[in-house]
Amino acid sequence: MGGSLAMALRPFTLHLTIVDRDPETRAACAELADFVTDSFAAGVRDASLVILAVPARAIVQLLQELPIVRPDGCAVMDIGSTKTEICRVMADLPPQFESIGGHPMCGKEISGFGAADADLYRGQTFVLCDHAGTTAVLRETAVQLITHIGANPIHLPPQTHDRLVAAISHLPYLASALLMRTAAAMEDNRAWTVSASGFRDTSRISGSDPQMMIDILLTNKTAVLDQLAQFQKMLTAVSTHLQNEDEPALRVWLTQAQSEHQHYKEIKTGS
Amino acid sequence: MGGSLAMALRPFTLHLTIVDRDPETRAACAELADFVTDSFAAGVRDASLVILAVPARAIVQLLQELPIVRPDGCAVMDIGSTKTEICRVMADLPPQFESIGGHPMCGKEISGFGAADADLYRGQTFVLCDHAGTTAVLRETAVQLITHIGANPIHLPPQTHDRLVAAISHLPYLASALLMRTAAAMEDNRAWTVSASGFRDTSRISGSDPQMMIDILLTNKTAVLDQLAQFQKMLTAVSTHLQNEDEPALRVWLTQAQSEHQHYKEIKTGS
Repeated sequence: MGGSLAMALRPFTLHLTIVDRDPETRAACAELADFVTDSFAAGVRDASLVILAVPARAIVQLLQELPIVRPDGCAVMDIGSTKTEICRVMADLPPQFESIGGHPMCGKEISGFGAADADLYRGQTFVLCDHAGTTAVLRETAVQLITHIGANPIHLPPQTHDRLVAAISHLPYLASALLMRTAAAMEDNRAWTVSASGFRDTSRISGSDPQMMIDILLTNKTAVLDQLAQFQKMLTAVSTHLQNEDEPALRVWLTQAQSEHQHYKEIKTGS
Repeated sequence: MGGSLAMALRPFTLHLTIVDRDPETRAACAELADFVTDSFAAGVRDASLVILAVPARAIVQLLQELPIVRPDGCAVMDIGSTKTEICRVMADLPPQFESIGGHPMCGKEISGFGAADADLYRGQTFVLCDHAGTTAVLRETAVQLITHIGANPIHLPPQTHDRLVAAISHLPYLASALLMRTAAAMEDNRAWTVSASGFRDTSRISGSDPQMMIDILLTNKTAVLDQLAQFQKMLTAVSTHLQNEDEPALRVWLTQAQSEHQHYKEIKTGS
């Protein structure tokens, strides 16, 4: 995600520094950036805008490190997957920092600089989360940056972002993993031969990086547990309808899901 | 599904009759078939092979009607989504009938003759279910038919078929509908703006036809409830890990899902 952002922003950036711990990544982006380093302190020393593109809990750590390595302050943005905890830490930065939370709603199953793509963000939604430490100037800079990379900005409070993504991203990930694990528990490879596009699509995101997902789930625990509780309530209802062979109740329930899917598709196509 | 099969089989069929209740469908397939009728009795009168392509419970009804309208018997196959109940009724047909269960593992979200596609079955898995009333000759005919339309036959006992599809098709449908209904319960259209490919793919089959799915769920109730129970057990486990912020347990659980997804993809690509 960070590599793609660096590529997409390169034409609009006078000086680009990339900080990465991995020697291979640093070698791969040597031509793209003006300065490449493994040192966070060295990387942020002269930056006017620092963009943190690491897992959510690592973002929190770097935010806490920032006032030490960059005591005179700078502008900070992140592209982490959860926003409440990150924006809380951002709001606690000393006054010489201005900061804004960000979350581009796109991703790749494969990561690393080799998979970077300057067009990754084109046409995608990019959430911006203001907080007490967000200035109007930084907000405008962030919107310009998002426009440069071809994405569509949307402003949401951090808690709203986290509640929405719990339902449309984190819970779907858990359901996808649950489907994968349930099917695999049969220990019958004929299941994969018989499987078709329905299983392919519903199981796809179960292949996501576990460490990235643990970071997301643990930094969005409350919202995810809320959505899990709602999912559980509905699971119990539909299971009961099936157990009772209650065809009218099943019809209402499944028709509602179909209508909601139709509505979602209409909004998505229209937006 | 029936329209696509008729199109795909046309080049290999001396005489093709299509039976359909819908006047528009009958008009649409007038050029494709040699004889088009709304009467099941008239349609099967001279057929050497009858292929039933209606929802699972309607297949059961037609199988029970068949000895009345075609007392001298014929060969019968179906392409219904569940097999145990259908094959049980097939096995009870009088001895002048020979029959075999079939289930092509493909589908379209849109149905009707207008969506028919002669290439729908190409490269897809096509399950065949033998039972007490299946002759070696009919089994061979069914394999030839499947080869003609470009699909790959696999032989499974009806109960095995139903157990496998409960896990890789019917449970994923319910999980997809549950995700759709859980997200819609927030009543916040911003969720759809923020949603990306993960939600698009995991929610896709929630748009399936409810009546078709009710037919499938009610004719495969036992196997679906078994898979729901397994899903529920795993849902409780992963929810507890998250509630307890048990990072090592979460890591094992999610890494297992990722490995299983990798294994599934390898088998699927290799097959």
